[in-house]
Amino acid sequence: MLNAADTSFAEQLEKAGIATRPVTEPYVEELRGNYRGLSEVVALPVSTQEVAQVVRLCSQARVGLIPFGGGTGLVAGQVAPAGPAPLILSLERMSEIRAVHAEENSLIAEAGATLADIQSAAEEANRLFPLSYASQGSARIGGALSVNSGGLNVLRYGTARDLCLGIEAVLPNGDILHGLKRLRKDNTGYDLRNLLIGSEGTLGVITAAALKLFPRPAHVATAFIAVPDPSAALQMLSLFRGHIGDNVSAFELISAQAFAFLRTTHPDLRLPFDRDPAWCVLIEVGTGPSTDAETALAETFEKAVTSGLATDARLAQSGQQRAEFWAVRETIPEANRKIGAIASHDIALPLGEVPAFLAEADDTLPALFPMRINAFGHLGDGNLHYNIFPPEGESREAYRDKAPLVTRHIHDLAMARGGTFSAEHGVGRAKIADLERYGDPAKLSAMRTIKQALDPLGIMNPGALFRD
Amino acid sequence: MLNAADTSFAEQLEKAGIATRPVTEPYVEELRGNYRGLSEVVALPVSTQEVAQVVRLCSQARVGLIPFGGGTGLVAGQVAPAGPAPLILSLERMSEIRAVHAEENSLIAEAGATLADIQSAAEEANRLFPLSYASQGSARIGGALSVNSGGLNVLRYGTARDLCLGIEAVLPNGDILHGLKRLRKDNTGYDLRNLLIGSEGTLGVITAAALKLFPRPAHVATAFIAVPDPSAALQMLSLFRGHIGDNVSAFELISAQAFAFLRTTHPDLRLPFDRDPAWCVLIEVGTGPSTDAETALAETFEKAVTSGLATDARLAQSGQQRAEFWAVRETIPEANRKIGAIASHDIALPLGEVPAFLAEADDTLPALFPMRINAFGHLGDGNLHYNIFPPEGESREAYRDKAPLVTRHIHDLAMARGGTFSAEHGVGRAKIADLERYGDPAKLSAMRTIKQALDPLGIMNPGALFRD
Repeated sequence: MLNAADTSFAEQLEKAGIATRPVTEPYVEELRGNYRGLSEVVALPVSTQEVAQVVRLCSQARVGLIPFGGGTGLVAGQVAPAGPAPLILSLERMSEIRAVHAEENSLIAEAGATLADIQSAAEEANRLFPLSYASQGSARIGGALSVNSGGLNVLRYGTARDLCLGIEAVLPNGDILHGLKRLRKDNTGYDLRNLLIGSEGTLGVITAAALKLFPRPAHVATAFIAVPDPSAALQMLSLFRGHIGDNVSAFELISAQAFAFLRTTHPDLRLPFDRDPAWCVLIEVGTGPSTDAETALAETFEKAVTSGLATDARLAQSGQQRAEFWAVRETIPEANRKIGAIASHDIALPLGEVPAFLAEADDTLPALFPMRINAFGHLGDGNLHYNIFPPEGESREAYRDKAPLVTRHIHDLAMARGGTFSAEHGVGRAKIADLERYGDPAKLSAMRTIKQALDPLGIMNPGALFRD
Repeated sequence: MLNAADTSFAEQLEKAGIATRPVTEPYVEELRGNYRGLSEVVALPVSTQEVAQVVRLCSQARVGLIPFGGGTGLVAGQVAPAGPAPLILSLERMSEIRAVHAEENSLIAEAGATLADIQSAAEEANRLFPLSYASQGSARIGGALSVNSGGLNVLRYGTARDLCLGIEAVLPNGDILHGLKRLRKDNTGYDLRNLLIGSEGTLGVITAAALKLFPRPAHVATAFIAVPDPSAALQMLSLFRGHIGDNVSAFELISAQAFAFLRTTHPDLRLPFDRDPAWCVLIEVGTGPSTDAETALAETFEKAVTSGLATDARLAQSGQQRAEFWAVRETIPEANRKIGAIASHDIALPLGEVPAFLAEADDTLPALFPMRINAFGHLGDGNLHYNIFPPEGESREAYRDKAPLVTRHIHDLAMARGGTFSAEHGVGRAKIADLERYGDPAKLSAMRTIKQALDPLGIMNPGALFRD
């Protein structure tokens, strides 16, 4: 059993030279308002050595800790609503870009650097750091790695995991793992980097990362393309990839329901179509200097129209219009919060299974209760945010008890088709029951064995991934 | 202490319905002739269930086992020259391509499928499986994943790890890990896939893998380009990537010494230049339908000449000539074996450190003893096979005792520049001392903890990665 991180523990930390502060809202309030943490104390180390010292002190005092990034996680990995209050170990004061190696396409960032900070540092070196999503101004790279977050450019550049060459981390015993290699190849023993990435702070605290950069595309073209249905959208993706290879960097699905929500919650937002299509795709193409992105996009769109895969399009005519197009996509989560979802899902499917899943869900869900469905997201990755809302004019409160039912139904359908109940958000505390229900027993057992071996006291993010 | 897999254990396996056979040369003879295994019995399971049964029987009898692929490993991961003879668990009878999902760019292969088998299956579906190296006709995907092998196309497509979406494996306790997901995103707990990949058979037996496929490039151009020195080669790589993005799929460094060896050992091989340049690069560019690869290559080459980064080139004029160019590159390891290396090294460096490393090695190595150096390999990945040979007319036997000295020197230089002593071959039994010397102590300690937790009896590839 762990002890709470109380004021007397805070005094111990202060005595050891570690800055602390009492928690304020952002440290204990989950973004969607579904969880509230019990933590009282925030530790604010300024160096990897200080992080190691905090971990050792927690270990000695049998106090749990939550490695804390930007607090933007969506599965309650960063808030402990039960159990002895863990220490919040915030990386916010470790936010330096330690080095930029433009010629090697890499940089070294501390865990507290925000995605936006890293994007800017890359841009200054005329490079691209492609990890990008709505919360990039506050999401920190340590947290992004700890859940292996994805976002808008995974199709071309991969998830946080794929963008990481090496990490520095503090292990549960206080050891510092020195793994900031800038190597593309290094086969020297177990892959602890990838074990820590995605472990949601339960095996250690990532303190810095060596990250991949990419050449900035010379030409970018962005368009909304209306499609008859998701199946046509996927065939169109194939068409695009056949013609312009891996230059397709984003392929986002948006439905008429999403546009309807945006028209309600954000009436000033400029939407692409006067009459919202049932389904459309936001596509972005980025090319090198020798290929004109707009021409490539327009030509392939024409082929899609001829094949009956597309019906209409709006091509961004300027950088400003491209930003407006992306604002539409990135405002969807906020609109959803304002409307108030009964249940949100972060599912992924093998690409070929997406259309059948959507049809099956459409056919079977309304039998549960009347609802509105907003399915949107990263179609190119097979990753949909499949969210359920009350009928117009009703509040989600009236349906709160139905959330588990609908979630079970959606996850069952996705899993039966070889999918997953968590594509890019992680498990945290919110999806432990799903992990137990759907997880491979051999995997769960090996996970417990590894957790027990590396963190025998259970101080690292107690209550996340595993039931207390 | 483990027991040997002797004839009486073979009888036990047979009784349980598992086919066995006495070992023959290929199972105990390492390719370069530096190691000879003691094993006596080969088990030949035909299904994942049979693999699990073999593992359980080994566990009950305290018998070690070596998961065995094509036997092409270069670090003695597959041969046990000491200790109680382990069972050879060969995956050769599990070589099916279980499914091809062309529209999703993925396929499922059993561990015993060779890289060439998988390449063919991909090609039949008009797709590319890019993992490729000289031994691809015999190397099996299970072994390739277990060492996270690399090869010729890593620059564009990544290593074996990067090409794997999911694995099925048998864990040391006999549990079957069902992880053959065809998902691009799946954040549901610890990344056991990547833990097993690169663990060299010490944490389990990979029995099948879900692998990524890619569109086949519509146009391919291949050229030898002579460069003044490795630094110019790297600048030229930057130039190419700036102009044609990630369409550069291979960027191999070859020196005059490599050509000289080839002229001696393979006098009938057609070499690209009449007078071998001091350094040259074999570059391959693959593009989509809308870009002409030859033009892109030729235009960028002209820019390189203007900038003083290249001096001469031979562009392959046909598919046959392209094959001849690659034969030159792929014959280098065989030529090296015929000449007889004193010591071979598989180092990698941050790209920016490669030229300084080469200069420093050139400056300091000759003080050890007279030698010839053949440094070649995957320059685009910072990965060099840096091999040391006796002076002309002398045999490597006379220098055998100097091998540790020169290896230490080369690894010291590489590590001091943030490099690695094993880029793509792994650690096996050959590089355990290097791992102990250069490995991060926190990493080594965590590795031991994980090994002990998941394989408490130590039956999985005993003697590999860890000293017995």
